[in-house]
Amino acid sequence: MKPPAVFQARNPATGATLEGEFRDASPGEIDAAARAAERAFDSYAALPASRRAEFLRAVAQKILGLGDRLLERAAAETALPLPRLESERARTVSQALLFADLIEEGSWAGARIDRAVPDRKPQPRPDIRRMLVPLGPVAVFGASNFPLAFSVAGGDTISALAAGCPVVVKAHPAHPGTSDLVASAVRAAARETGMAEGVFGIVHGTSPEVGITLVTHPAIRAVGFTGSLLAGRTLFDAAALRPEPIPVYAEMGSANPVFVLPGAIADRGSAIARGLAASVTLGAGQFCTNPGLVFVVDSPAASAFLEEAGNCLAATAPGTMVHAGIKAAYDREVGQVARLAGVSIAARASGPGAHPDTEAPAMLLLADARAWSAQPRLGEEIYGPATLAVRCASRPEMLELARSLHGHLTATIHGNEKDLAEWGDLVAILKKRAGRLVFNGFPTGVEVCPAMQHGGPYPATTDARSTSVGTAAIERFVRPVCYQDFPQAALPEELADANPRGIWRLVDGHLTRDPV
Amino acid sequence: MKPPAVFQARNPATGATLEGEFRDASPGEIDAAARAAERAFDSYAALPASRRAEFLRAVAQKILGLGDRLLERAAAETALPLPRLESERARTVSQALLFADLIEEGSWAGARIDRAVPDRKPQPRPDIRRMLVPLGPVAVFGASNFPLAFSVAGGDTISALAAGCPVVVKAHPAHPGTSDLVASAVRAAARETGMAEGVFGIVHGTSPEVGITLVTHPAIRAVGFTGSLLAGRTLFDAAALRPEPIPVYAEMGSANPVFVLPGAIADRGSAIARGLAASVTLGAGQFCTNPGLVFVVDSPAASAFLEEAGNCLAATAPGTMVHAGIKAAYDREVGQVARLAGVSIAARASGPGAHPDTEAPAMLLLADARAWSAQPRLGEEIYGPATLAVRCASRPEMLELARSLHGHLTATIHGNEKDLAEWGDLVAILKKRAGRLVFNGFPTGVEVCPAMQHGGPYPATTDARSTSVGTAAIERFVRPVCYQDFPQAALPEELADANPRGIWRLVDGHLTRDPV
Repeated sequence: MKPPAVFQARNPATGATLEGEFRDASPGEIDAAARAAERAFDSYAALPASRRAEFLRAVAQKILGLGDRLLERAAAETALPLPRLESERARTVSQALLFADLIEEGSWAGARIDRAVPDRKPQPRPDIRRMLVPLGPVAVFGASNFPLAFSVAGGDTISALAAGCPVVVKAHPAHPGTSDLVASAVRAAARETGMAEGVFGIVHGTSPEVGITLVTHPAIRAVGFTGSLLAGRTLFDAAALRPEPIPVYAEMGSANPVFVLPGAIADRGSAIARGLAASVTLGAGQFCTNPGLVFVVDSPAASAFLEEAGNCLAATAPGTMVHAGIKAAYDREVGQVARLAGVSIAARASGPGAHPDTEAPAMLLLADARAWSAQPRLGEEIYGPATLAVRCASRPEMLELARSLHGHLTATIHGNEKDLAEWGDLVAILKKRAGRLVFNGFPTGVEVCPAMQHGGPYPATTDARSTSVGTAAIERFVRPVCYQDFPQAALPEELADANPRGIWRLVDGHLTRDPV
Repeated sequence: MKPPAVFQARNPATGATLEGEFRDASPGEIDAAARAAERAFDSYAALPASRRAEFLRAVAQKILGLGDRLLERAAAETALPLPRLESERARTVSQALLFADLIEEGSWAGARIDRAVPDRKPQPRPDIRRMLVPLGPVAVFGASNFPLAFSVAGGDTISALAAGCPVVVKAHPAHPGTSDLVASAVRAAARETGMAEGVFGIVHGTSPEVGITLVTHPAIRAVGFTGSLLAGRTLFDAAALRPEPIPVYAEMGSANPVFVLPGAIADRGSAIARGLAASVTLGAGQFCTNPGLVFVVDSPAASAFLEEAGNCLAATAPGTMVHAGIKAAYDREVGQVARLAGVSIAARASGPGAHPDTEAPAMLLLADARAWSAQPRLGEEIYGPATLAVRCASRPEMLELARSLHGHLTATIHGNEKDLAEWGDLVAILKKRAGRLVFNGFPTGVEVCPAMQHGGPYPATTDARSTSVGTAAIERFVRPVCYQDFPQAALPEELADANPRGIWRLVDGHLTRDPV
């Protein structure tokens, strides 16, 4: 048996090694975490929603209670600026509170009641009552780009815990210290609110084997992941090959195409150019909703628009990426794309400055429609502060390119009212290729709310039927169970005649909060 | 290129070859059907729900319009008795009407609206509106045991068409003539109601390659299947290995464990024994909800219960299975199980009679708990009119066995009120292992209603998060899309402020049918 890999975190802005040693979890440690989660499942799932809500609220409190220590460690590990981390912490905390409210209100359980019809001919109709129940222990993979909101106590963990599923987190090796701090907060919250031991666990690892071992563990019943296509697909494949396959909700990035229509360019091309550059460079381009493709129909106004976008990008100070591996991948990808036939670098920010290992200059790449169509690599994501503008000769050519897009998380249209009336077919095309359609805005900034859909057709995610942001994220970790002819006393309160919690239920096909 | 396999249907009751030649679809024919479905998708998905409802109602009418010809062909191909086929046709027709009503009412689309908050700090909140949209063309595999209700225009097809997805059916080779008749009805309905060419297609095939070619076709976006574990898993694996994986909803059978608790045996053991025998032999045991496992705690009353169940089974006339291959598998499986250590045949109906190739005698097999635990084969389904009774020495032993069950479609408890109070832990255990829990009834007979859950943990199905029966079956063929800051005129009517159809929507977190 080889000894476990020991690793330390690095400050990507300075290259300095940070305090604390972490090591790859052994198969035995992964097994222990998964089994502890399995042992915790029955009692945790059986708790009243109010108790789980109390736990989630305590998680929020304990994270806030870590104070500046958490923000400082996260800043040191990721080079994300403190204001960004502060707002990410606020988002993490408000997600926990949102899901606490959701499960306390209770209607999310999707209760349906079809009452018996004893005198129906030829057969009596039985009494059938259905609701959603938790799947079991969930493995959650922390993301590099959101050390708080999509990591240890991020959206995946909180929505799984809300559903009644214990969670084992695989921490991202780019921010292991931040991960341990948040894990200590979740554990303290679990202790204080009397949750079962094992309701939450964490393992570290730099090797892909740690993740594979976790995902193929028989106790794990679902997986939440945010990261690269390669890693996400590897986990999906491993889960599909299990003796009992399990769902993998992998969000694997996206090029988030933006279509800037002629009327919009004429009306406010300059504002769109500036907004685009700001969206592309936000957080050093490390957002899964980063707009990496921009389509225009050629015209003098379109040229001016692209020139202004290029100028804005060129004027942006280089951003520090969360680790050197990601910066190296950015350089490699930009280099590969720029060398392809028909592609040029239209604008490039100066830099990198003092830390070329991690600082990424913003870039505008340019291609014509024919070059883009002929080279599928041009439709894929470049992770970082670059965007590829594609000049189309005509409206039909732009529609043709839209049709050839694969799945993305988002698709954006800039247009005026006349554009929208004329380009209805573009909306219809994009609806098949994205989970979220944005009009006259930018895709970065994903609102946490009931109506959010963060998840699109493959390769944006492995399961376009789900969202990883917003209250509907809880639906990923449940399955329906129905009870036939059970006496009242043996039914969960969600399905009992009295409806003690006053939840919305579909009774004999009609939504109501009334008792039966 | 090898020539396509030509095959004919056989009457399983007489062995006679039936009129009509069918042949395995060629790769070119499968490609043509899938591409036609893809071409039909956009216009079909864009139709108002009322038009799709009209189509579904026309399907129901056209199936009825086939008259006795359909029932006679189905009877000849499957040996199912005419009254059963008549009720299956009624179920098929009522399913189509149910889904027509569902989509016409419209609330199933799960509309959610979160309104903009322009003055929110630090960022304005955008307007986000979300609803379910169809996935695209669906491949549906006809089932051998339900030539109407789970075949060409069965639950999978109707729920996919209702969702807005074109369908390509792979007909079951046991009833190709029935399949073609129903297909002609669906096509006539499509023509009469002006649906796009390609909204419905059908291919035949005896070879597994036909199904694999269909499931791996890039135009196909989801799969509905009812059949064996081997075939279902093969399709699931093929779909997971696609460049773009797609969901496979395979319902692969189940042993449907029944727990007969001591109080129930004391109160009405004789009635339960008779009911059990009737459920086991219904339709020659060819129901996916057939109760194939019965657990009792040893006692003189339990012995008397098993003896009576055995007597009832022994007195049942042999049923004719839908084809000789299924009967041969039944003989093989019963033989394998009966030869295992600690297993005996407690009762066996006389027969087979005149047609040993297809007539299956009912059987009660018996094992003790230790033999059952030691041999995983005993927990698996025997497809046909046999059930395996397992005698447990004690309550803890019965709970231990329940814990070791894998996933099933259903689990049944017979008990009185005192039993239920004492055996709450059994309900909790079974909830993790089945999609439907039945109290004091039998699992055969699956009600088509909003609250039905027909689908359980693997290996009962490949996706326990879904149901193949009841109105929620439509959820298998959709994904959410959200619109951010779109003008009213560009929104689907489900998401427009005015709510012209008066559907239920979650507006700012609250369910309402009011306009915004």
